[in-house]
Amino acid sequence: MAGGLRAESMHELPLMPMPAHIEQRGSALVIDGAFRIAVCGTRDAILDRVVSRFIARLAAETGLFLPMAAAPGDCSKATLAIECTRRVLPHPSLGDDESYTLEVTAASAQLKAPTSTGVLRGLATIEQLVQAGPSAFAIPAVSIEDRPRFSWRGLMLDAARHWMPVEVVERNLEAMAQVKLNVFHWHLSDDQGFRVESRVFPKLQEKGSDGHYYTQEQIREVIAFAAERGIRVIPEFDIPGHTTSWLVGYPELAAAPGPYSIERNWGVFAPVLDPTRESTFRFLDRLLGEMAGLFPDPYFHIGGDEVLDTQWKANPAIQRFMKAHGLESSGALQSYFNRRVETILTNHGKKMIGWDEILAPDLPKTALIQSWRGQDSLAAAARKGYRGLLSFGYYLDHMRPASYHYANDPLGGGVEALKPEEAARILGGEACMWTEYVSPETVDSRLWPRLAAIAERLWSPASVNGAASMYARLEPVSRKLEFAGVQHRKAQDELLARIAGERPEPALKILASAVEAAGIHERYPAHKYNSLEPLNRLVDAAVAESEWARHLTVDAKTVAANPADDAAAARLREAFALWEGTAAHLEMLGSRSFLAAETVPVAKTLSQLGTAGGTALDFIQKRESAPPGWAEAQLPLLAAADKLTAEVRVAGGGVVRVLIDALGVASAPSGTATGASARK
Amino acid sequence: MAGGLRAESMHELPLMPMPAHIEQRGSALVIDGAFRIAVCGTRDAILDRVVSRFIARLAAETGLFLPMAAAPGDCSKATLAIECTRRVLPHPSLGDDESYTLEVTAASAQLKAPTSTGVLRGLATIEQLVQAGPSAFAIPAVSIEDRPRFSWRGLMLDAARHWMPVEVVERNLEAMAQVKLNVFHWHLSDDQGFRVESRVFPKLQEKGSDGHYYTQEQIREVIAFAAERGIRVIPEFDIPGHTTSWLVGYPELAAAPGPYSIERNWGVFAPVLDPTRESTFRFLDRLLGEMAGLFPDPYFHIGGDEVLDTQWKANPAIQRFMKAHGLESSGALQSYFNRRVETILTNHGKKMIGWDEILAPDLPKTALIQSWRGQDSLAAAARKGYRGLLSFGYYLDHMRPASYHYANDPLGGGVEALKPEEAARILGGEACMWTEYVSPETVDSRLWPRLAAIAERLWSPASVNGAASMYARLEPVSRKLEFAGVQHRKAQDELLARIAGERPEPALKILASAVEAAGIHERYPAHKYNSLEPLNRLVDAAVAESEWARHLTVDAKTVAANPADDAAAARLREAFALWEGTAAHLEMLGSRSFLAAETVPVAKTLSQLGTAGGTALDFIQKRESAPPGWAEAQLPLLAAADKLTAEVRVAGGGVVRVLIDALGVASAPSGTATGASARK
Repeated sequence: MAGGLRAESMHELPLMPMPAHIEQRGSALVIDGAFRIAVCGTRDAILDRVVSRFIARLAAETGLFLPMAAAPGDCSKATLAIECTRRVLPHPSLGDDESYTLEVTAASAQLKAPTSTGVLRGLATIEQLVQAGPSAFAIPAVSIEDRPRFSWRGLMLDAARHWMPVEVVERNLEAMAQVKLNVFHWHLSDDQGFRVESRVFPKLQEKGSDGHYYTQEQIREVIAFAAERGIRVIPEFDIPGHTTSWLVGYPELAAAPGPYSIERNWGVFAPVLDPTRESTFRFLDRLLGEMAGLFPDPYFHIGGDEVLDTQWKANPAIQRFMKAHGLESSGALQSYFNRRVETILTNHGKKMIGWDEILAPDLPKTALIQSWRGQDSLAAAARKGYRGLLSFGYYLDHMRPASYHYANDPLGGGVEALKPEEAARILGGEACMWTEYVSPETVDSRLWPRLAAIAERLWSPASVNGAASMYARLEPVSRKLEFAGVQHRKAQDELLARIAGERPEPALKILASAVEAAGIHERYPAHKYNSLEPLNRLVDAAVAESEWARHLTVDAKTVAANPADDAAAARLREAFALWEGTAAHLEMLGSRSFLAAETVPVAKTLSQLGTAGGTALDFIQKRESAPPGWAEAQLPLLAAADKLTAEVRVAGGGVVRVLIDALGVASAPSGTATGASARK
Repeated sequence: MAGGLRAESMHELPLMPMPAHIEQRGSALVIDGAFRIAVCGTRDAILDRVVSRFIARLAAETGLFLPMAAAPGDCSKATLAIECTRRVLPHPSLGDDESYTLEVTAASAQLKAPTSTGVLRGLATIEQLVQAGPSAFAIPAVSIEDRPRFSWRGLMLDAARHWMPVEVVERNLEAMAQVKLNVFHWHLSDDQGFRVESRVFPKLQEKGSDGHYYTQEQIREVIAFAAERGIRVIPEFDIPGHTTSWLVGYPELAAAPGPYSIERNWGVFAPVLDPTRESTFRFLDRLLGEMAGLFPDPYFHIGGDEVLDTQWKANPAIQRFMKAHGLESSGALQSYFNRRVETILTNHGKKMIGWDEILAPDLPKTALIQSWRGQDSLAAAARKGYRGLLSFGYYLDHMRPASYHYANDPLGGGVEALKPEEAARILGGEACMWTEYVSPETVDSRLWPRLAAIAERLWSPASVNGAASMYARLEPVSRKLEFAGVQHRKAQDELLARIAGERPEPALKILASAVEAAGIHERYPAHKYNSLEPLNRLVDAAVAESEWARHLTVDAKTVAANPADDAAAARLREAFALWEGTAAHLEMLGSRSFLAAETVPVAKTLSQLGTAGGTALDFIQKRESAPPGWAEAQLPLLAAADKLTAEVRVAGGGVVRVLIDALGVASAPSGTATGASARK
């Protein structure tokens, strides 16, 4: 559905994140059957596997039969010489040197990095540079010196609310490595599920997971998989709230009597651990000890967010304990709990991470604060001497446009006023993917391609911040990510095929390409969901941002400025014609498939937008004014497009709005451009 | 691109293979969150895994959260009761009972089968029946009694000419099970590669595979994977010809002195084993003994095809041996070789299979003949008392239409005159996928969906033979197969994205949807290929049969018969408009991407067909005659569409041909309908 990128971006290389320094040289290195890759400098089995994977993907992309193993020591004769100059890192650690240099000429390419992780980052850059040129596959000649701006560039994935199988995790780790992310924060327990095998307390997974948990062998497999891609794995076990699933098997941990059952609804719930009993800490010591042995990274996340104190307040024994220990509030009790947990983690060699809520006056300075509340909260932590991460502004489940996330800087907002030594405590950030409305099937399309824009924010210089350039590069990078294995584009076709049922319905693809899905805050009130609800509707097939609408909006602006631009007008006309046809097709489909029925009113709006857009375009191209009242009469239609119907918005509304505005009638106070931006 | 199925097929259930007996009841069983599955009768861990996989796929398709494990013994309360009445089969064997009965009412469903394999077959039927209905996902109420017509229903996959990784093999085994195929014939060695780890003779894989071979652990994994899907695995080691890759590591086996290197070209080559030395048979005894231990099925394929005797004739020692042993021809020498190999296999507990060429007067009757030469050759073998399989007519790498393969019956042609006891020796057939022009990336689209039509030929009654019904069911089944994991539809988009390079080009998808790829016999002369040649061009993205052209051909016939059919005319007009636009877009792309350059003349033909089709449609709808000479002037265009360009044909030509014919000008002697059928 999407047209080509526009001319202004044609010569920008499709790199994301953009390297710290890059110079283009105008020629290109051809990749053909004679292309030879060599590895010199320090090497070992891990680095060899890294290079083999790179070669396999390059072979798959170009269709070339390339020797799978790089021969040692013959870098002088190679087309691509890969040199690790200092050391191979067996495991990634916070603060690793990830820098590299890449020199590509028409004759050869040299990738040099002090560490194997630097090599990984450089190979990811090369993969993005490979393109089919006029005469062959080629790598443009460039000189690159690159290093990350932040040392902590992560993704938090919630595997508790919807189960995420190992293959889903691994394909997303692969894609993360492609955009140089280096932390996978795995949210492994919540009210709706406990997702790791514990051998010490097996009822955690047996009673609390519906059978959906990672075995310890699988956890080790994922950690090794991530390590080979330069990605650290940080587990999160959210305590003392968000623990209903723990209490199904171990109700004695709770602050109120059981029995408990796995939570099936979304929200914040009362069940909470009892922090006044020593048995609770003995349990945590053994469990966190077991998990500390399983996860090698020194950091360990204990959540600590959204603790309701209703059970604490209703429990006389807890109230007596608080009085006896001078704990004057529920916050003080949680703070006491956190100190105890911190001691347990320290004994097991781990440093604690928690969400904003763990920040209390007596929190040890070794703790790391992950801020979902915003830069002000993060700045406050940094001023007090804590290191921190930004996640506010990076919640991908909110389904906001990439440009919104891209504009959030870990050193922006309230952080800007920090002294340099305070600012240095901001280690980076993490995108968050909470999965109330996200299934293994839809998670890729909720993560990608927008996560690549966040990856750029965390890697590239702060000065790399133009949204137009970001979008121009995001689209080709998005397609490359599918070659690496994530299915954010393919998954839509499968979902639509199921909605269509027995027969394919092209109009459904047109509709899905012109709408944008609601995020968690809008879906929650729209429809009574719980964890058993199927995520198989138009809203689940739709994405956060319509590429097609974005391109057409550019075309509409072009035509508005220059009615003689026939190419832009032709693309608009083609789109409007396709939109017009959708309603009739989907009415027929809606009578046949229950999943399609709710798309009918959405298609009606899109069809009407097609008609209105075509009419507006006629006026503009004939340089006529619209008849009095015509433009005003379209305003309810534009409003309908911006309103949620079947939990989607019609992004095509923004395109038509531009044309109507061009006719001299302000269609909305802010003159917003797309459905997406109307939500910012 | 493809439109919906036409009305005539709307009420036919999308089943393939069609069951032996089926009755529809008009209502349907709703699948919702209350759907419960139970297993009763005989059960074990394998059957439980079979059912769990079924549930997982049903959950993925419907988006429903279904309990993953079926509780034992509560079939009376289940929505779907699965009962294995006699025994669970730990391994599939030739002649296993694969029958099942399925009774679905609006209230519940009962699947009963005497064996676990029958349960598998029945579950595959249920998966095909599940569809999104007007109010929910549902299974139509049916009564089915089903059993296969032939006991041997296979696919031969050549993993030697192009390497096929384990995941490619496994996802195709999964799809095979969905259409009830039960034999995977794995062509594991040929001139271009020896693909199995031998621990006895490790230089086979070390020198003869470019590093692309299956470890013994992987082989065992694949066999177990296949067994759980009711599929037997038959290995083929092709001897005495087709053995260049063996001779790289073990030149002493050859009939002529080495050294040898892995063959990079396609064709039939001279290297051949020396059958006159005892050391050759000692080698084969140890190797085949090792492989006999690895592959549990009693059948073992030794190839035996296309033996060139140039090395035998040029070797005086071999000629002396032949004279001394009364072997009067090279054929007699091969026959001697086969008898020796047959003895070796018998000693290792195996029964020999070979291609037609092994049939000689002294071949033991235990040998099984696989016929690539045709039904006459197969009938001759059956008359002599040999059991046989048909593969002639099932060569999917020839890229012929599904209807062609579908019309080939193992008991048709020369076999028809057999006596009943002779006909009973025809066990079934095997589709063949030779991979000279097929890569791991394109193999799915070369196998599917056409293999499903062959599967039906081998399972369903001979009377199920209407091509229109077959195609109407093939399309929904094809989409279901992608849910099961094969990527025959998705792979095209990735290939096209790479051809387009940095920016997407919708015109490329339009072009690829309207053309059909050449098969092996046409590609071989068209372009000098070898095994290092990339398979990443338009022809590799194109498929054997264009669904779009098939639908439009039906529309063209409809309009020709009834010019007032506006719906059909509108679909044609939409297609012609899209075709017209392709040339301009692809000319621009061709100047930018070398992979796209060769598509330009193809797009020109398609564009001209769009113009001609639109004009013809105008004449027909206005009930006007074409001006004198107009139709004749279009004939070179139709000829160009049928001609290979860039190794594809423009299937859209068949659509326009129907319209031109309707104007009263016979455009071609046979009045063929589509590009595909022009090749039959």
